[in-house]
Amino acid sequence: MPRRYITLTTDFGSVDPFVGVMKGVILSVAPAASIVDLTHEITPFDIPEAGFSIYQAARYFPPRTIHVVVVDPGVGSSRRPILVESGRQYFIGPDNGVFSMILSSGSFRAREITNDKFFLKPVSATFHGRDIFAPAAAWLARGTPVSKFGKQIEDALRSSYDKPVRTAKRAWTGAVLKVDRFGNLVTNFHIDEFAWVKDRPFTLEIGLRNVNRLVRTYADAPPGEPVIVVGSSGFLEVATNQGSAARSLGCASGAPAELTIY
Amino acid sequence: MPRRYITLTTDFGSVDPFVGVMKGVILSVAPAASIVDLTHEITPFDIPEAGFSIYQAARYFPPRTIHVVVVDPGVGSSRRPILVESGRQYFIGPDNGVFSMILSSGSFRAREITNDKFFLKPVSATFHGRDIFAPAAAWLARGTPVSKFGKQIEDALRSSYDKPVRTAKRAWTGAVLKVDRFGNLVTNFHIDEFAWVKDRPFTLEIGLRNVNRLVRTYADAPPGEPVIVVGSSGFLEVATNQGSAARSLGCASGAPAELTIY
Amino acid sequence: MPRRYITLTTDFGSVDPFVGVMKGVILSVAPAASIVDLTHEITPFDIPEAGFSIYQAARYFPPRTIHVVVVDPGVGSSRRPILVESGRQYFIGPDNGVFSMILSSGSFRAREITNDKFFLKPVSATFHGRDIFAPAAAWLARGTPVSKFGKQIEDALRSSYDKPVRTAKRAWTGAVLKVDRFGNLVTNFHIDEFAWVKDRPFTLEIGLRNVNRLVRTYADAPPGEPVIVVGSSGFLEVATNQGSAARSLGCASGAPAELTIY
Repeated sequence: MPRRYITLTTDFGSVDPFVGVMKGVILSVAPAASIVDLTHEITPFDIPEAGFSIYQAARYFPPRTIHVVVVDPGVGSSRRPILVESGRQYFIGPDNGVFSMILSSGSFRAREITNDKFFLKPVSATFHGRDIFAPAAAWLARGTPVSKFGKQIEDALRSSYDKPVRTAKRAWTGAVLKVDRFGNLVTNFHIDEFAWVKDRPFTLEIGLRNVNRLVRTYADAPPGEPVIVVGSSGFLEVATNQGSAARSLGCASGAPAELTIY
Repeated sequence: MPRRYITLTTDFGSVDPFVGVMKGVILSVAPAASIVDLTHEITPFDIPEAGFSIYQAARYFPPRTIHVVVVDPGVGSSRRPILVESGRQYFIGPDNGVFSMILSSGSFRAREITNDKFFLKPVSATFHGRDIFAPAAAWLARGTPVSKFGKQIEDALRSSYDKPVRTAKRAWTGAVLKVDRFGNLVTNFHIDEFAWVKDRPFTLEIGLRNVNRLVRTYADAPPGEPVIVVGSSGFLEVATNQGSAARSLGCASGAPAELTIY
Repeated sequence: MPRRYITLTTDFGSVDPFVGVMKGVILSVAPAASIVDLTHEITPFDIPEAGFSIYQAARYFPPRTIHVVVVDPGVGSSRRPILVESGRQYFIGPDNGVFSMILSSGSFRAREITNDKFFLKPVSATFHGRDIFAPAAAWLARGTPVSKFGKQIEDALRSSYDKPVRTAKRAWTGAVLKVDRFGNLVTNFHIDEFAWVKDRPFTLEIGLRNVNRLVRTYADAPPGEPVIVVGSSGFLEVATNQGSAARSLGCASGAPAELTIY
């Protein structure tokens, strides 16, 4: 029997016992499952950041991995719990757009999780990670067929944070998807769609600066000057060598980024 | 052979190698054990916060789980290492009150851990997590009978942080057990004992504000107004929708909370 | 088959998906490996801190453990990936001095990792943790002989942060290796080489203060007064009982520490 992995991505932080509680619930149902922490430090309620994180990480995991994402400004309100199958993997979380980039990346099947046989009861108003998402993942890891969890749906929520918008013949408005720990600004411009920046002059207006230099690696950047690097997932990142681009450009997650190509 | 889980709860943070060292010690003694991080971000030396965390998380774990808690202002002083059996689980840590809520929650047996056969020698003055608690947990996971660790004791330390105190016919003084990551103030008022707040007018004086509204879920709170929510473990929490109650009320862990019911 | 452990030490923090990506890569190649997080909170690019952390933690792990360290100011530049065998364990990371304390601690064999059969391709310019170090560790965990990874080298980089320098007959200049979470200043003076401090008067000039008192344990220190404690790994630490020595002395990692013995 190959091991089943369940990854966890939340905005619970590592201060509170919430993540520990979810692990207990999972291991009580599926003692043979292996839990892998992706991150619990998603900015509270930041759906794009969570969606980008799971999109980046999931593809590297073995087939049949189950990814649980719990980032949900609307916990306790009426949004649905869903189970998505995509790329031979499984995704469990709230239907709030957090799986947008997964849904956009290829074919998928989504179900609403309605079978409360797999819930921890009574289901609380505030902690669906414990009461719905963790036990559903654990029952899936134990081999429960996906069809038992609920009916297929066609209208899983897709948000628009994952693509820049064209605003003129040679201009696009994108956004900072997230600020990484080193202060690099990860944008939603992907090199596959904006390969031109390699060959043609361009300006990326972002925060306090215009950036117009693409380098191969951080080490190629003169200290202090903001440059663009193709990040490890293919998205353009604004970085400064050994410094924080976020600080020197005065930028945060969600900030607009205007790309013009000449 | 079912897997044996060892959970870790400490105030070591994730910056230092202390937790890594404890994991190495455990796996060297019990290579088949599975280690589960609960949290290493307990506020340094905050026994109530640690006690509340392990109390919340433990019940969700499978029988025979071993919970190690290392939060100890008096490390190197004379307090005893103890092993507690409660609810078909095991708890290992210093006898400094950190297991008060476990001891109050049902029947238990406590032992002083005296058998230094299970210690890493020489036992240092500063790192009992490595030298006493981690190896004791690992030997227990390997199947060592509890009686080998030391004699039963009847006087395991119990602190008083877990219960509000009645101060008048309709008034109680409780406390903030902890501030969670979202700034919610978790109090030691439990809904089972204060169910009246559901039906009767009340005031909770806490920090700069009086709070007198109970809502079912965060999403039901008008942005900015502090409200009371029954937290996922049954304790009353003061929360503000998508904001920090701790900041808007000027409150920290340990702050008093006065409940009056009319 | 005994379990194979792969430990991870990085400066990636827990906010970004980088660590999760590395875990996915490892488990895809070596599904039976057990991953153990040591720390991901190394100060960005701080090689001495990372080197000290892995040196402290590694010795407690079982034989055949594989330790991956990814802290690398020069990622994308020309430094080599290496595989070090020392003390019946394995160390994989960049050849930038991060394994200095391991190399100084006993006999070892080092290899440059050149066999790109074990890399994730295409190898990116910015994320060697994912593309080189994680898969190399995973292939090693699967049983690939070390000789397959590349040729032995004799010139693995050794930095000088691990030893104080003698500056006069009775005076040495050392350094703060790191500030731990409690604000204790861990120096590179080891008790085995400076055992005299137990018996003879001394002064340690560090930051704003002279410290000249050695105590057995934090609890023996008068609150507020900086004292020296022999840390759990044998290095002298400047600590204040229940307070931050770093703050009261105005000291950070890298600060000099002058020891004079009378």
